[in-house]
Amino acid sequence: MTIKVHGNPRSTATQRVLVALYEKHLEFEFVPIDMGAGGHKQPSYLALNPFGQVPALEDGEIKLFESRAITKYLAYTHDHQNEGTSLIHKEKHEMAAQLVWEEVEAHQFDPVASKLAWELVFKGIFGMQTDTTVVEENEAKLAKVLDVYEARLTESEYLGANDSFTLVDLHHLPLLGYLMGTQVKKLFEERAHVSAWCKKILARPSWEKTLALQKQA
Amino acid sequence: MTIKVHGNPRSTATQRVLVALYEKHLEFEFVPIDMGAGGHKQPSYLALNPFGQVPALEDGEIKLFESRAITKYLAYTHDHQNEGTSLIHKEKHEMAAQLVWEEVEAHQFDPVASKLAWELVFKGIFGMQTDTTVVEENEAKLAKVLDVYEARLTESEYLGANDSFTLVDLHHLPLLGYLMGTQVKKLFEERAHVSAWCKKILARPSWEKTLALQKQA
Repeated sequence: MTIKVHGNPRSTATQRVLVALYEKHLEFEFVPIDMGAGGHKQPSYLALNPFGQVPALEDGEIKLFESRAITKYLAYTHDHQNEGTSLIHKEKHEMAAQLVWEEVEAHQFDPVASKLAWELVFKGIFGMQTDTTVVEENEAKLAKVLDVYEARLTESEYLGANDSFTLVDLHHLPLLGYLMGTQVKKLFEERAHVSAWCKKILARPSWEKTLALQKQA
Repeated sequence: MTIKVHGNPRSTATQRVLVALYEKHLEFEFVPIDMGAGGHKQPSYLALNPFGQVPALEDGEIKLFESRAITKYLAYTHDHQNEGTSLIHKEKHEMAAQLVWEEVEAHQFDPVASKLAWELVFKGIFGMQTDTTVVEENEAKLAKVLDVYEARLTESEYLGANDSFTLVDLHHLPLLGYLMGTQVKKLFEERAHVSAWCKKILARPSWEKTLALQKQA
C-alpha cells in the first residue's frame, strides 16, 4: 500500500513530512491540497485532519496529521537497515538528548522562526505589509535561541546527537530554508557552529528533493 | 541514584513532570527553584537548562529539560510491569494515534490554554490586569479545539488511546487544573464527553499528589 501525503509543497509542515519520506527512501503519492480554494476546509479533508491544516498522511488504514507526529511515526515504524537514515536513537542517553532537543525545536525555535517567516516571506506572497516591530522582537528572541544552539553545536556535530542527523535537525529544515532567503540569515551566519550546521543540513539530498517537488508543483 | 526534579510546584511544566513521576511510582527528590528570586537564571540552574525555564530533571548523569521531553523519557525508560501506568503504546496503530494527539496537545491546546491561564490565573497572582480581548479571542479558539476533542472522545474513552490513560491525557492536566478554577470551565462542561474526560483524569491519584506537593511547598 503506497503512502499518501496530502499537503501543499510550500507549507513548512508539509515540507517537514516530505524530507522525512525522502530520508527514509519511502515511496509515496503526493496529493496537492489547493489551500487558495479552501481545499483544507472541505469535508473530505477534514475527515483526514479535523483541524483543517496540512499535511495529512495515509499509510493504508492508518491516518495521521500534525507534521511532527508523522515524521516520528515514519522514523519509528521504518527503522530497518535498508530504510534510509535512522532518524532516532533508542539508547537511554541518546534518547534523552533527542527528546530534549525535539521539544526545543517545537517550543523555543518554531514559534519565533514561524513569526519571522510569516512577516518576511508569506506576508509578501499575500500582498500584506511586514510589521517591523514584530520582526525586531522576534529577531531578538531568535538570537537568544541561537546562542544556546551555538553552545550546543560547539560540543555536538548535530543538534540532537553528536554523530548523526536525527529528527531534531530535520524538523528545523523548512523554516531554516525560508529564513535563509531573508535578512534573518545574518543571525545564523554570525554564529560559526550554527552556520556550519545550517549549511550541512540544508545540503542534504532529502532537502534538495523537497525543494524540487515544490518547483514541479 | 534518586531522580532529582528542579522546579516550581505552581508551574504547569513542573506539574507535568510531577504527575508523570507519580504515575510511574518513581522515587524522586524535589529541589524547589525560587523563581521570584531569579533562581532559574542563576548559572547553576542554567547549567541544567540553558533556556532558564523550569523544570529540569537529573537521572544520575542524564540531565533533561523541557517538560514533555522529560515525561516521554520517563515513560520510555520505565515501561516495565511494576513501574506504574504504561503511558505509551508501541503497536503501530496505537502509536500513530498517540503521536498525533501528543502533537495536538502541544500545538493546538497548549498555546491557547496557556494564554487563558496567564490572563485569568497568573496575572492576578502578579497583580496585573486581565486583558478581556485576549480572553475572548482565546476562548473562541479553545471552543473550536474542544469541538474536535468532543468528537474524538465520543469514539475513544481517552484522547490518545481508546482504553488507556497515556501521556496525551497527562500532558493536559496542569492547564486543565488551572482553567477549571476560572470562567473557562464552562467550555469544558458544555461538552458532555470532554466534561466526563476532564473529571476522570483530574481524579487520578497522581494529580492529587501533585496538588498536595504544591500545598506543602
